[in-house]
Amino acid sequence: MLGSTHGTLTTDARRARVIACGDGRPGPAVHGRAADVDDLDVSGRPLHADVPDLDRFFRPESVAVIGASDAEGRPNTGITRQLIAWAERVGARLHPVHPTRQSVFGIPCAPSVSDLPEQVDLAVLLVADPFPVVEELAEAKVRFAVAFASGFAETGEEGAAAQARLAAAVRRCGLRLLGPNTNLNAFEDFRQDLDGPAIALITQSGHQGRPVFALQELGIRLSHWAPTGNEADLETADFISYFAERPEVGAIAAYVEGLKDGRSFLLAADRAARRKVPVVAVKVGRTETGARTAASHTGKLTGADAVVDAAMRQYGVIRVDGLDELQDTAALLARARPPRADGVVVYSISGGTGAHVADLATAAGLRLPVLSEARQAELHQWIPPYLSVANPVDNGGHPVGDWRGRKIIDAILADPEVGVLICPITGPFPPLSDRLVRDLVDAAERTEKLVCVVWGSPVGTEPAYWEVLLGSSRVATFRTVGNCLTAVRAYLAHHRFVRDYRSPFDDAPRTPSPSFRKARELMRPGEQLSEHAAKQLLRAYGIRVPREQLVTSAAAAVRAAGLVGYPVVMKASGAQLAHKTELGLVKIGLTSAAQVRDAYRELTDIARYEGVSLDGVLVCQMVEQGVEMVVGITHDDLFGPTVTVGLGGVLVEVLRDTAVCVPPFGEEQARDALAGLRGRALLDGVRGRPPSDLDALVEVVLRAQRMALELGDQLAELDINPLMVLPRGQGAVALDALAVCS
Amino acid sequence: MLGSTHGTLTTDARRARVIACGDGRPGPAVHGRAADVDDLDVSGRPLHADVPDLDRFFRPESVAVIGASDAEGRPNTGITRQLIAWAERVGARLHPVHPTRQSVFGIPCAPSVSDLPEQVDLAVLLVADPFPVVEELAEAKVRFAVAFASGFAETGEEGAAAQARLAAAVRRCGLRLLGPNTNLNAFEDFRQDLDGPAIALITQSGHQGRPVFALQELGIRLSHWAPTGNEADLETADFISYFAERPEVGAIAAYVEGLKDGRSFLLAADRAARRKVPVVAVKVGRTETGARTAASHTGKLTGADAVVDAAMRQYGVIRVDGLDELQDTAALLARARPPRADGVVVYSISGGTGAHVADLATAAGLRLPVLSEARQAELHQWIPPYLSVANPVDNGGHPVGDWRGRKIIDAILADPEVGVLICPITGPFPPLSDRLVRDLVDAAERTEKLVCVVWGSPVGTEPAYWEVLLGSSRVATFRTVGNCLTAVRAYLAHHRFVRDYRSPFDDAPRTPSPSFRKARELMRPGEQLSEHAAKQLLRAYGIRVPREQLVTSAAAAVRAAGLVGYPVVMKASGAQLAHKTELGLVKIGLTSAAQVRDAYRELTDIARYEGVSLDGVLVCQMVEQGVEMVVGITHDDLFGPTVTVGLGGVLVEVLRDTAVCVPPFGEEQARDALAGLRGRALLDGVRGRPPSDLDALVEVVLRAQRMALELGDQLAELDINPLMVLPRGQGAVALDALAVCS
Repeated sequence: MLGSTHGTLTTDARRARVIACGDGRPGPAVHGRAADVDDLDVSGRPLHADVPDLDRFFRPESVAVIGASDAEGRPNTGITRQLIAWAERVGARLHPVHPTRQSVFGIPCAPSVSDLPEQVDLAVLLVADPFPVVEELAEAKVRFAVAFASGFAETGEEGAAAQARLAAAVRRCGLRLLGPNTNLNAFEDFRQDLDGPAIALITQSGHQGRPVFALQELGIRLSHWAPTGNEADLETADFISYFAERPEVGAIAAYVEGLKDGRSFLLAADRAARRKVPVVAVKVGRTETGARTAASHTGKLTGADAVVDAAMRQYGVIRVDGLDELQDTAALLARARPPRADGVVVYSISGGTGAHVADLATAAGLRLPVLSEARQAELHQWIPPYLSVANPVDNGGHPVGDWRGRKIIDAILADPEVGVLICPITGPFPPLSDRLVRDLVDAAERTEKLVCVVWGSPVGTEPAYWEVLLGSSRVATFRTVGNCLTAVRAYLAHHRFVRDYRSPFDDAPRTPSPSFRKARELMRPGEQLSEHAAKQLLRAYGIRVPREQLVTSAAAAVRAAGLVGYPVVMKASGAQLAHKTELGLVKIGLTSAAQVRDAYRELTDIARYEGVSLDGVLVCQMVEQGVEMVVGITHDDLFGPTVTVGLGGVLVEVLRDTAVCVPPFGEEQARDALAGLRGRALLDGVRGRPPSDLDALVEVVLRAQRMALELGDQLAELDINPLMVLPRGQGAVALDALAVCS
Repeated sequence: MLGSTHGTLTTDARRARVIACGDGRPGPAVHGRAADVDDLDVSGRPLHADVPDLDRFFRPESVAVIGASDAEGRPNTGITRQLIAWAERVGARLHPVHPTRQSVFGIPCAPSVSDLPEQVDLAVLLVADPFPVVEELAEAKVRFAVAFASGFAETGEEGAAAQARLAAAVRRCGLRLLGPNTNLNAFEDFRQDLDGPAIALITQSGHQGRPVFALQELGIRLSHWAPTGNEADLETADFISYFAERPEVGAIAAYVEGLKDGRSFLLAADRAARRKVPVVAVKVGRTETGARTAASHTGKLTGADAVVDAAMRQYGVIRVDGLDELQDTAALLARARPPRADGVVVYSISGGTGAHVADLATAAGLRLPVLSEARQAELHQWIPPYLSVANPVDNGGHPVGDWRGRKIIDAILADPEVGVLICPITGPFPPLSDRLVRDLVDAAERTEKLVCVVWGSPVGTEPAYWEVLLGSSRVATFRTVGNCLTAVRAYLAHHRFVRDYRSPFDDAPRTPSPSFRKARELMRPGEQLSEHAAKQLLRAYGIRVPREQLVTSAAAAVRAAGLVGYPVVMKASGAQLAHKTELGLVKIGLTSAAQVRDAYRELTDIARYEGVSLDGVLVCQMVEQGVEMVVGITHDDLFGPTVTVGLGGVLVEVLRDTAVCVPPFGEEQARDALAGLRGRALLDGVRGRPPSDLDALVEVVLRAQRMALELGDQLAELDINPLMVLPRGQGAVALDALAVCS
């Protein structure tokens, strides 16, 4: 099962497994570049997504309904009725299948799939146990199936095992399956009268997609809905990849409870980023409560939220919290053209409204440029001189009687600094608001720039809102300022992201580096390495450690100190040794041979007293001037090895100021992660300290990634703490390291 | 002008000024306790609010309209027409006043106020210049006036001066004035058919109040609307105090751009807190852009946002960002009864929806208790066993056909752990959603507990929403999960706050402490004190400083070190001396007489070289073990002296992890401020360090408040940095201090 590369296999085993899956899946035709079974990164994870061609799934010409019914009161009867209506609407041929019925709702019924008059594109399985049908479907060369049955992974271990068997059966016979535990959402009654770029929707819960689907009632086009259910076969990532290739799709909206596999998700997000298609997602699992509840709903892992969050950010997936934000952000991103500039102007008929919205917009990180003197003079042709038009532009009441209102809006939109105009309207106050809305709609038709209106009335039944604003496909209409700002920020960020996007997959390492052979020899399965060995591991990957020597006598310690240079630090070094500082097994600032000799004795005495076995005592160069950071490697259930970087020392414990980088990532992603740290200013130099060697820090993070990918699960955990980042140009030194082999 | 006690007067001058104002304002009758001119705190600020009786303002029996018009096309004509309609509705007698007209809209017109047939309660001033009318109004014993005219403080300095003159004129004659630069919002057409607790609205912009006013169309009662405009006389605080006394007011909603005076705002918030009336406010000024724009709108200061924010938090004012949050939170708080418990249950027809909302609710800080085994067993009588009912409660589809749906809801509400039930409904799916909504409305009628529904459909025209949900005054209905959670959190926090509320005004000091006389002698007007003098100031207020001596010879330094005890710290001490560390004027860890002698020479050499004049060299006890904090005093334009506390060292610069306490505050508020620090865990002890002496830290913050209030503007700035907080039971020591006198 390609989909669940969890963190318990060695590189070789994983590679073998992936190859087997590749072999075992003749599968349907593949969009774009075919999944090359040899195209794996050094960790054995795929570097290309296998994108299923789902055209016939979403627009089948013929459909079999297995378990069709027209008996009163049976749940399947309602579903059959819905499917018949749908088939009529889209012009698909529908074939009921039932072992005993002659006809269903007047349509002739076949006893089994093999008795159907034609080869069908899609089979809808309304049977409680889909297993027996799968082989039949394969023989009848049916390409797609949807399984409604529940009782699989969402119910616990036994169900999960049944689901794994179903997945294996499906894979064996080359069928692509949606579900189990899904529904008819893919075959809803989509409005056909709407045009322009559409939202494609993916949900792991039918109910949670309902409000996005309802956007059609507000005039926003929806092209697809994939209710992925338990994802035994087809998963969220498959649909993201597929939708990213469809020309009618302007944005992908996803409601995600858990991911089936981290890598397939990253590959799908990467494909969307390359195609410049925005993906907006709600992802449950911010809290333990959410993670636990979601797991019991679809039987999927939610993943460590910080890792999921970092993965999304790295690959440009826009994460939002509420379904309302999902709707509003996806609708804006689907329909708005790329921005001409990142400046935002707030235009309002009230100084108060302008001040308030400008305040919130600035707090949301948007840039509100002060309009040029010339532009302000132009606006003051139509706006009284005592009103401020610097931005926000306060018109003191939009001119109703004549052409001036349009002039104002056009003049704002003509400004090269302006990419977005936001007009908050607190409610209906005809005729002023009617004319304002009309002018905005007209102006939006004649510009490439984004025009947003916030209709602030809580009522929302007013004609200016329903008929005029929602009637326009060029004005982005919101009900709250907050959602408008969230969407505009996402819009500007998305276009910045895709403009500069360079896929980390292009540079992901395919073959082990020369470091790998050296490193492998240092690994001790099941053991925590000594500090000395862990540092050798770092050295193998080109991560600098202090000048140091491992010694086993006081005399050797003194000689080592002479070579290393005073002052020195001395530390006990031994496998399985933790909490050195707490045990008193670290001595710093030793400035003489006598102190070194004493320290050697003391350290070995403590070790003996504590019953700790040492491989020796490290005599290390003392490195003081720098910023203490931490860099670590951990394994995530979904994404495999990840690299964490953060502020070191007491800070790391108190403030947990860390960022996660999810492989594959490049230099830019590593820099972004560092930029996201709250305490990043420490690296820039404060209180007269010099700025730190950021490049060296980034290099360590990238080398840690290489180590994580090459050593895979053999390296259960790595912690460089502290990594002393020296002033610019002087590098970074790993002063201590903890490495655990598995 | 009582309202603008800015930070440039000495205590005595301020006291004198306040008394003068008190004398100069015979004013209308006063609600509750009268403003006692002697009831001032030690800084000369009032300890009681002067609450105007505004009954006759909001419900006048007779009204004069000065500048009434029925001439076609004049703006005053529209306003006159609105006022006539309003007077008819509420049964008030309306008298047009105009120098030349005989009648207006058929109503006899008087040439001036003195010619009116009766004494009127309220005069509406539609004239461009209200000055000449004010005296007339006073002579005619009119109690209230509303001034529409603009061109005052919102236009700049000249306008501000005109406004000050208007305010003075109004005060002289005992009139209470709303405006200038305001409008008719107070006399809108309020729905009379709604009952239950109402929202009272205060806005500094008419447009910004519109959406709250529109809540009436959703069935939410509004009792008052005060559009305060420029607040030359009546201010936001007056209305908060007045509304807090009105029995029909369930919550006060305010849109605030700037405050006229910090103290009057605190007193009003205090009154509302004592009366347990929630105040929900949008306050513009989170950013520079917002502050600047708001200032140009109503000519008011926005205040330093961190100070305003702290003041609101201290006094229980619920600050929200969007008008939608203002609406939803105020509506909930106005109508919901006090909570029986703080546990929240999410009830939903979909496992996905339940998981999502539970996740967001937990992330929002709400407590979602796991329901007891017994309760779960009870729920499983009506809910299939494979669905989780632990919380969230997933019913898998609310039972439609019978009584089970109500049983489920009632069973949840019967749980003593549960105070709030939240039911998110993603949209209409009749008959299920209709029955669910009906059951929720019925259950809400029969419980004291809070029932919230989130109607997630973006359409919002569905009958289940409009007719059933909005038809209930017991169900709190929301359109987004985010706003529901914001409101529920505010609801639980408000009731916790008022339950435990003890007014800091009750304990505010009225007379100077014995420390004051000592401290005053140390002040040097216009100077920055030497470190030694600043520490004497701290000592005067009982804040501990290290053992230290000021010496002027090397020999004295050695003697002092012997007395203080080795190791010692030596520092140059001089007035106007800053950046000691950067200049090399601090020597730490001196362990011998020789080192002390050398250090003395070096420090005096550097001072000579740098041209710095010293009052000597401090020989101080070295205090190492503890957590470095900062405590400071600064002056805010609105609130006067405030006390800031935060993490010290590099942290304070990089993370700006500080909290503000606004006087008057008590021990509890100081503790809350500390609890809000991101790095607060440092004080609890990390990495095996002992917990810090939090009590001592709180005591320093309280003593700093005393100092700030007593010394007032004489002390322009105080910075204790670092304040070393020692392990629990050992106190806190101010290691360095900077004091600037003004």
